[in-house]
Amino acid sequence: MRTQVVIIGAGPAGLLLSHLLRLAGVASVVLESRSREHCEQRIRAGVLEQGTVDTLTQAGLGSRMQREGLVHHGIELLFERTRHRIDLTALTGGRAITVYGQHEVVRDMIAAAIDHQQPLYFDVSAVSLHDLTTDKPWVQFTHEGIAQRIDCEFIAGCDGFHGISRDSIPAAALQTFERIYPYAWLGILAHAAPTCDELVYAHHERGFALFSMRSPELTRLYLQCRPDEDLAQWPDQRVWAELHARFDNADGWLPAIGEIAQKGVTPMRSFVCEPMQYGRLFLAGDAAHIVPPTGAKGMNLAVADVRVLSKALAAHYRDGRDDLLAAYSSTCLARVWRAEHFSYFMTNMLHPSFDDTPFVNRLKLSELRYVARSDAAARMLAENYVGLPFDD
Amino acid sequence: MRTQVVIIGAGPAGLLLSHLLRLAGVASVVLESRSREHCEQRIRAGVLEQGTVDTLTQAGLGSRMQREGLVHHGIELLFERTRHRIDLTALTGGRAITVYGQHEVVRDMIAAAIDHQQPLYFDVSAVSLHDLTTDKPWVQFTHEGIAQRIDCEFIAGCDGFHGISRDSIPAAALQTFERIYPYAWLGILAHAAPTCDELVYAHHERGFALFSMRSPELTRLYLQCRPDEDLAQWPDQRVWAELHARFDNADGWLPAIGEIAQKGVTPMRSFVCEPMQYGRLFLAGDAAHIVPPTGAKGMNLAVADVRVLSKALAAHYRDGRDDLLAAYSSTCLARVWRAEHFSYFMTNMLHPSFDDTPFVNRLKLSELRYVARSDAAARMLAENYVGLPFDD
Repeated sequence: MRTQVVIIGAGPAGLLLSHLLRLAGVASVVLESRSREHCEQRIRAGVLEQGTVDTLTQAGLGSRMQREGLVHHGIELLFERTRHRIDLTALTGGRAITVYGQHEVVRDMIAAAIDHQQPLYFDVSAVSLHDLTTDKPWVQFTHEGIAQRIDCEFIAGCDGFHGISRDSIPAAALQTFERIYPYAWLGILAHAAPTCDELVYAHHERGFALFSMRSPELTRLYLQCRPDEDLAQWPDQRVWAELHARFDNADGWLPAIGEIAQKGVTPMRSFVCEPMQYGRLFLAGDAAHIVPPTGAKGMNLAVADVRVLSKALAAHYRDGRDDLLAAYSSTCLARVWRAEHFSYFMTNMLHPSFDDTPFVNRLKLSELRYVARSDAAARMLAENYVGLPFDD
Repeated sequence: MRTQVVIIGAGPAGLLLSHLLRLAGVASVVLESRSREHCEQRIRAGVLEQGTVDTLTQAGLGSRMQREGLVHHGIELLFERTRHRIDLTALTGGRAITVYGQHEVVRDMIAAAIDHQQPLYFDVSAVSLHDLTTDKPWVQFTHEGIAQRIDCEFIAGCDGFHGISRDSIPAAALQTFERIYPYAWLGILAHAAPTCDELVYAHHERGFALFSMRSPELTRLYLQCRPDEDLAQWPDQRVWAELHARFDNADGWLPAIGEIAQKGVTPMRSFVCEPMQYGRLFLAGDAAHIVPPTGAKGMNLAVADVRVLSKALAAHYRDGRDDLLAAYSSTCLARVWRAEHFSYFMTNMLHPSFDDTPFVNRLKLSELRYVARSDAAARMLAENYVGLPFDD
């Protein structure tokens, strides 16, 4: 088999890249180790930046998102029993976020790929990358029991943090930066109508809590917990009692109780590898960087990466220009480090931690009060939350 | 002896408090353990917030400051060999800072006190505070070999971090918050004309450096160093070489070399005690809280505290109202924690540290780039640097 670009991974990064490349007239093949069902049902992030929404819409992938996505013009910060609204739209000159599950985005992209007969292999195994530092790299994989080889010109590693792409790069060629947080999120999905139209981020001495939603019938809630939290210790009743304790506020607002459809623990990690390129292999999305979920940046960074990569590959094939490819890593990393900092800032501010000194925990309250009071501080939070404009 | 308010300490907090009380018709006596010469010559902070300048001017203490103080409308951040100006005045609707040494402020205040025959005892020893939780507290001290007692109604503890006031409060009545930084500042005062009109804060992989000035003939410079740095290891030549390495920039700007008049190491500490009151004893300034010098907040916080305290005591004596005294600690602490957070933010952002992970050190560069690029982030820095407006 032969193609121009082999894309490892059919998450949002890989699927959007193959779509954007097709629009630019560049051929690609997507290889995914999981099943289509798994990709379409895996509940992940759900907050799309304005730029992500615009990118998907311009690429012709936005019609269901426009119908079913929930546009939010603000978020709430709840601390010291008081709710403070951050008016994202007013603070950013009209930008907003859209709540639309990552698995819905993936579903729309898989449908589009099939529609356009984009080569897309699920359930592949034994994937390996070869001759990355030559201009004739190739990929070995097994599909339906048959070992195959694809010759190509570029490889895009879009297979997430635990994928094989980053591991195919010699360790000495990468510098990595990491922080593992001393807490995690216990997340639940509940059959309950959301009782607030916007996300509520709560800082409470018992720990952080987040109210969010997936649809007009589904509430998504999170509780700060230990990284090794045992779900068996969390019967539904305890989950609701803890949520109600942390969301306690002077207005008497609370999330509605409903049947819990799903319960899980999300670890919290920050990670960046530099550079995001090795020879003809380009890393995008979680394969190159991880953020804790607090800032809702993970999928948005993946979209930003493949925007840059698709333009750079298009410039190579259309104009014979390689300057954008050469700049790929540094172009992406500027945005990545901004998002890493914002995610770290939001995470630290909202999570009291036994790992921090009483002094540092007190600073968190000072920071929250400042964001609620200062227009400059609120605007700083808002412009990062809705996503800084793309440079192009 | 008898008075209304005994003030422990003749630093900026104690001297300004006695001055403001006199203007409000409240009698006070100031006790200071050091000599007048020591107080007038001790080189400390030198950046006055707009609100500090306004307070001193309104109190009639501003005439020499207005003549000799250097008004600055911006500061510079230097990183990645590039200078970025933060236009404080444009970003804060017209506010500015004034560079005027703390010892000059103290000198002006001592002159005013003597002029107004304010009772002011230098070189006192064996100071002790008594019956703080009654409405008849008293102070014992020794002056010129004679033990004396002053009966009073209130005591103001303005004797700094190492003073006896805070130590006179039972430990169980106070909650303390502290951070000791793993680095310090090596400061020099040089006979050299400043080569830049504004302060330059440099982040360099070799460590932080700060360019500032005391007068048109005196440059004040700082280098990040170890807390236990041995000054004997820093001959003048090494100091200048290190400064020039850290200030290296594309414009070729550098501080001028001159005879070094003074060399010292400043430790870096954050500290807050809560509450700032115990019975009839009220703590103000460094006696209650310490900030690292990076945000230039120490003396400004002291001025803000005694503004609040003088108004509260005036309300007690003039109107028989005690609500302002009861609110003293919480009123001050709101501003204190804001300044603590800002000082921590500036300190962390500007000092690379072996104590931090490579991830956290990289975030500092992302934060600096963001401040240089985002109007919201620059405005956040600027409004804190010039000082948030007083609430009254």
